[in-house]
Amino acid sequence: MRISEIIIKKRDGGVLTNEEIQFFVNGYTNGRIPDYQASALLMAIYFQGLNEEETYQLTRAMRDSGDVADLSSIEGIKVDKHSTGGVGDKTTLIVGPLAAACGVPVAKMSGRGLGFTGGTVDKMESIPGFKTTLEEKEFFELVNKNGLSVIGQTGSIAPADKKIYAPRDVTGTVENLSLITASIMSKKLASGSDAIVLDVKCGDGAFMETAEKAEQLGSMMAEIGNADGKKTVAVITDMNQPLGRAVGNSLEVIEAIETLKGNGPSDITELSVKLAGIMIYVGGRAATPEEGTEKAQQALESGAALVKLRAFIAGQGGDTGVIDDYSLFKDHVYEVHVTSPVSGFVEKLKAKQVGLASQHAGAGRASKEDEIDMSAGIYLSKKAGDAVAAGELLATVYGNDEEKVNTAAKELQEAYIIGENTPEKQPLIHKVIGL
Amino acid sequence: MRISEIIIKKRDGGVLTNEEIQFFVNGYTNGRIPDYQASALLMAIYFQGLNEEETYQLTRAMRDSGDVADLSSIEGIKVDKHSTGGVGDKTTLIVGPLAAACGVPVAKMSGRGLGFTGGTVDKMESIPGFKTTLEEKEFFELVNKNGLSVIGQTGSIAPADKKIYAPRDVTGTVENLSLITASIMSKKLASGSDAIVLDVKCGDGAFMETAEKAEQLGSMMAEIGNADGKKTVAVITDMNQPLGRAVGNSLEVIEAIETLKGNGPSDITELSVKLAGIMIYVGGRAATPEEGTEKAQQALESGAALVKLRAFIAGQGGDTGVIDDYSLFKDHVYEVHVTSPVSGFVEKLKAKQVGLASQHAGAGRASKEDEIDMSAGIYLSKKAGDAVAAGELLATVYGNDEEKVNTAAKELQEAYIIGENTPEKQPLIHKVIGL
Repeated sequence: MRISEIIIKKRDGGVLTNEEIQFFVNGYTNGRIPDYQASALLMAIYFQGLNEEETYQLTRAMRDSGDVADLSSIEGIKVDKHSTGGVGDKTTLIVGPLAAACGVPVAKMSGRGLGFTGGTVDKMESIPGFKTTLEEKEFFELVNKNGLSVIGQTGSIAPADKKIYAPRDVTGTVENLSLITASIMSKKLASGSDAIVLDVKCGDGAFMETAEKAEQLGSMMAEIGNADGKKTVAVITDMNQPLGRAVGNSLEVIEAIETLKGNGPSDITELSVKLAGIMIYVGGRAATPEEGTEKAQQALESGAALVKLRAFIAGQGGDTGVIDDYSLFKDHVYEVHVTSPVSGFVEKLKAKQVGLASQHAGAGRASKEDEIDMSAGIYLSKKAGDAVAAGELLATVYGNDEEKVNTAAKELQEAYIIGENTPEKQPLIHKVIGL
Repeated sequence: MRISEIIIKKRDGGVLTNEEIQFFVNGYTNGRIPDYQASALLMAIYFQGLNEEETYQLTRAMRDSGDVADLSSIEGIKVDKHSTGGVGDKTTLIVGPLAAACGVPVAKMSGRGLGFTGGTVDKMESIPGFKTTLEEKEFFELVNKNGLSVIGQTGSIAPADKKIYAPRDVTGTVENLSLITASIMSKKLASGSDAIVLDVKCGDGAFMETAEKAEQLGSMMAEIGNADGKKTVAVITDMNQPLGRAVGNSLEVIEAIETLKGNGPSDITELSVKLAGIMIYVGGRAATPEEGTEKAQQALESGAALVKLRAFIAGQGGDTGVIDDYSLFKDHVYEVHVTSPVSGFVEKLKAKQVGLASQHAGAGRASKEDEIDMSAGIYLSKKAGDAVAAGELLATVYGNDEEKVNTAAKELQEAYIIGENTPEKQPLIHKVIGL
């Protein structure tokens, strides 16, 4: 088998066999196939696409390129939850405790943030003492004990994805549904959970800009997951503006805690309860998704989920004092207010622009090697649809580098479109696929 | 300017600016742009194409990536002739002396053979003592003195082409007319001649399999050449069967000598006189192409071209004794006859298959590092349309490696399709573009 012939076959619209796909994934991962042939094949795939079977085989080959976690020593139906990435998306920190409180074990591997989207691992590390690197045994024990543990994804999970993603990012081959599906699902399938709830974001601050594209991606991922014997549900949710009011690592953890105390913004509360409800249903702890939602709501109101959060933080070495005293988080030196130049309504609050401003304030990374400022970020006082008077506070930027904070404030100002009309309200949840 | 953005622009069907094309060519040639981004861009170009202006700008940028030869110290209108490559194509060795005999200076840089097609430089080196590497000054002096010199292409001519061609060959991005045009024409424009006659082969043994494709390529190359101020003519010629009867290095030189003696096969004689006629016309030594053809015919019949060949060989250190005594060429040890299994007509003689058999007999290279056997090759006793009796000789394979010669003979047998009908006669010259 020769990779040059596989490239030409795909270039000419052929359907690759399982063997050809494995040959590519294995050869590229172990270095026998050079980058320039991989990138040519990926560009040919961009133009010619992969059918459902090819996508499934690619996902499987990538899954099998490294370790496949065996979570069998954890009791119960393990449920994973994954977000395709957005701005202000701290749902993992809320749905994990909600699901765990209802008896669904959550043994999750999470990523770090890159660009304008944050990552759960970074957010958790803003809690003093919190460790996201654990021995496998410790990880399993914590899930068995507390119902919840979240660790950083190790390099041994789907190494082919890491290898394939690197050239895609700089060769214009990211925007292909099959390649996105294989990238996400290879890691999910290798992570060992029995069921998967996918939060597929759509809108200005999401990778998929339209609901249609997000639905296509959600459907494809759900099909691949189910084909692999894992109950997989895709929830298509809005990311035209940030989720909640806090963007940035410790700011988002504080908002997640507030939400579990019952004081969260309505959007983040609603979405978290809904996602947790689906997790509880697919985890076999509710007879219907609606019953799952009710149980999640009860776990929130009773404080049971907050108890789980406390155990979760304590289990991974974090200071649980942060739950009651936010001053224990690393503080910021600078804060800059962004005010409205005119009176009217917030017609639009551009999520991506907010994410970029937060990143530039110090909360995110432009490249993997960058250090992040845990205290940096943004608090949004006004969101889309809110009335605002001239000179009234729109949002606040926090951080420890004066120049960065000022730059971010200018960018944030541009994220707000103030006009005379209230915008049409977007549904928070567009569709649920695979229930 | 970022190469990743240029890739995405072309991927999405955009038209690249001159600056973007130069950025790519220069950045890739000097190593700033890595192979994997170049191959992704080339695949995007494969799918989206380049328009005429982009193709011209790519050609110019590649031309300017290295030295552009200054032939001004050679008197007269210098005319180059280039073949896109075929099997048994020894026309350069004939048209060079024909044109030179008619007063057209030919200062040519030629390539080596690769795969099933031969190269003029290799063929000439089968003449004992013949040097294809000369100092520039010596090269110019020889053209001024003899009207003709042919040297190997140096690495300093269009290095971008060498760099770009390497990944194309193994990433399925060869078959694109704009990229082929830029590859050929960048070298032709850098080689410094004032006018160019292109022999664009079409058919089974050519890179362009159909006359239509060859015409498209010929038109594009002629346009680019003329846009650069060089009179460029493209002649579309048949390569459904080998040209002449000899395939392989010294065998082809002998056939070229025989042709200049007036004893050549009719196809090679006709094509050579026609191509030389066009060279004589564009070189300003005939008022019409027809007059050029007449002059070429006279130079052949009078023996003037043979005199030029002798001077050409002597000028580059070759043993001119080979013209009168073919035993001075390196001899072969083995020869195997291929005979017809049945009586009938040669319905088809597959050029590519003959070229591969010759290569495998030792006359060609699979990779650039391979050594070639100058005496190896094939003599075709029967060609398409010839009647043949069962057991009659079709062709002979020569070489110095018994196993290789036997393998080649088996392959050669398969190149002959013997049937009950005579095939439809193909025109040798399909079209002349740019006159």
